Amino acid sequence: MAKKSVREALRLDEVDLSTLDPAGRPIGPRNKKEAAADLAVTGAELDGLQEALYAENSRAVLLVLQGMDTSGKGGVVSHVVGLVNPQGVRIASFKKPTPAERRQHFLTRIRKVLPEKGRIGAFDRSHYEDVLVPKVEKLLTASEIRARYREINAFEQELADSGVTVIKCFLHISPEVQKERLIARLDDPKKHWKYNPADIDVRSKWSKYQDAYTQALKNCADTPWYAVPADRKWYRNWAVSRLLLETMRAMDPKFPPPAYDIEAEKARLISNDPLR
Amino acid sequence: MAKKSVREALRLDEVDLSTLDPAGRPIGPRNKKEAAADLAVTGAELDGLQEALYAENSRAVLLVLQGMDTSGKGGVVSHVVGLVNPQGVRIASFKKPTPAERRQHFLTRIRKVLPEKGRIGAFDRSHYEDVLVPKVEKLLTASEIRARYREINAFEQELADSGVTVIKCFLHISPEVQKERLIARLDDPKKHWKYNPADIDVRSKWSKYQDAYTQALKNCADTPWYAVPADRKWYRNWAVSRLLLETMRAMDPKFPPPAYDIEAEKARLISNDPLR
Repeated sequence: MAKKSVREALRLDEVDLSTLDPAGRPIGPRNKKEAAADLAVTGAELDGLQEALYAENSRAVLLVLQGMDTSGKGGVVSHVVGLVNPQGVRIASFKKPTPAERRQHFLTRIRKVLPEKGRIGAFDRSHYEDVLVPKVEKLLTASEIRARYREINAFEQELADSGVTVIKCFLHISPEVQKERLIARLDDPKKHWKYNPADIDVRSKWSKYQDAYTQALKNCADTPWYAVPADRKWYRNWAVSRLLLETMRAMDPKFPPPAYDIEAEKARLISNDPLR
Repeated sequence: MAKKSVREALRLDEVDLSTLDPAGRPIGPRNKKEAAADLAVTGAELDGLQEALYAENSRAVLLVLQGMDTSGKGGVVSHVVGLVNPQGVRIASFKKPTPAERRQHFLTRIRKVLPEKGRIGAFDRSHYEDVLVPKVEKLLTASEIRARYREINAFEQELADSGVTVIKCFLHISPEVQKERLIARLDDPKKHWKYNPADIDVRSKWSKYQDAYTQALKNCADTPWYAVPADRKWYRNWAVSRLLLETMRAMDPKFPPPAYDIEAEKARLISNDPLR
């Protein structure tokens, strides 16, 4: 295998979801055990990179997680974002907009929870819901949706300009695996709370959602999308962890130099001893 | 050893900091290895309790971390709060109030970042800074500080009444160990950003801060304080993890029953197959 990066391997250039295998493993570990070992090593490196990003205090990362129900957005937050110090993390999840939110520009609620400098943000759903649902449910005209695509491209460019590196992941799951996971939720009393009868209404519009995703991913591609095969949880977590790792390695955050004189501070520390 | 709980063992009843050993191990593991094994088991149980708390969506936990510089407030966030799913966590850290914050009631900025229902909140410093610093720096009169003690007691009672269980931890460190840790920060380029020359000014007022803590802990004791010996990092992390565990076990969060008919949903899931 050529030494390709995960970002190269998963980057979505031509958006044709029908050719993408949700159970694929285009790069990386061949089984769960290899993936787990890799994830532990990645976690340690990510933890160090995050501390430097935090100390540097000038840039941020934003992981945007999109995908159908049960594709594992929450799982990625738990297993990938959970690898680093929670102090440096900002997680936001977006549900159906409230009436108050609908009276504002659709990006307003998104802007409110952007990661601060030095932080890794994670969005469980995002501004993409505001072009997916209106398209499937015909809540906006085609021209209104195209306007939103343009606004999203401009918004993501603005983020890049302000030092926020956005990593957009489409967690690609098959309808068969979604069905298994929904049944698993119904079969386990500890998972009943995760199940919502409305999930089936959305599921019944599967191909409409795939079309809406295709349009959104094609039209909002100024910042690249990564297609993450999500039928295997271990592969999904591994892939997102590597996308985050490669991105942060490229950002190469640096611990800032001290803004004080080290030797003078040592001398003060000794002479100002409160125990004397 | 009697089967005492960690909450009983560390609960601060008579506040006399001079009798508390910052390197003590009043209960629990005798060494780092035992503590690490214990922490892993605790982490798994905490993760399950947190998921139930999140699913239940009616109560919250708030871990208040106070202590002198280098006592390990950030370390507890990383190593204890980091044990659970970051989705269910809300972390806030409080620095010196800004001019805008000083124009508001001192509890206003605190109220803004309280954990939502279902969450575990962690405060790295807290409203206690607003009685400690004013006392040491003589920014408020004795009567004004007493008024704040009363307001804090009322505020914490209000939290309890609204379903937020507050766990207040005083991370007790010795000035000798603080000195070692400050020197370590000066000796490691990756830690220079954590060092602030103003830390030495605070350190030089060590006994005044111990007095201010004594008064604050005594006067704001309606919600109990736990004194966590913090000279050993492994003991500190172990102790806080157990305080959190025992508290959450006592809260006993429950996964809610489904608000739908399980069999009917299974039937819908099969009949609404988008693949047909």
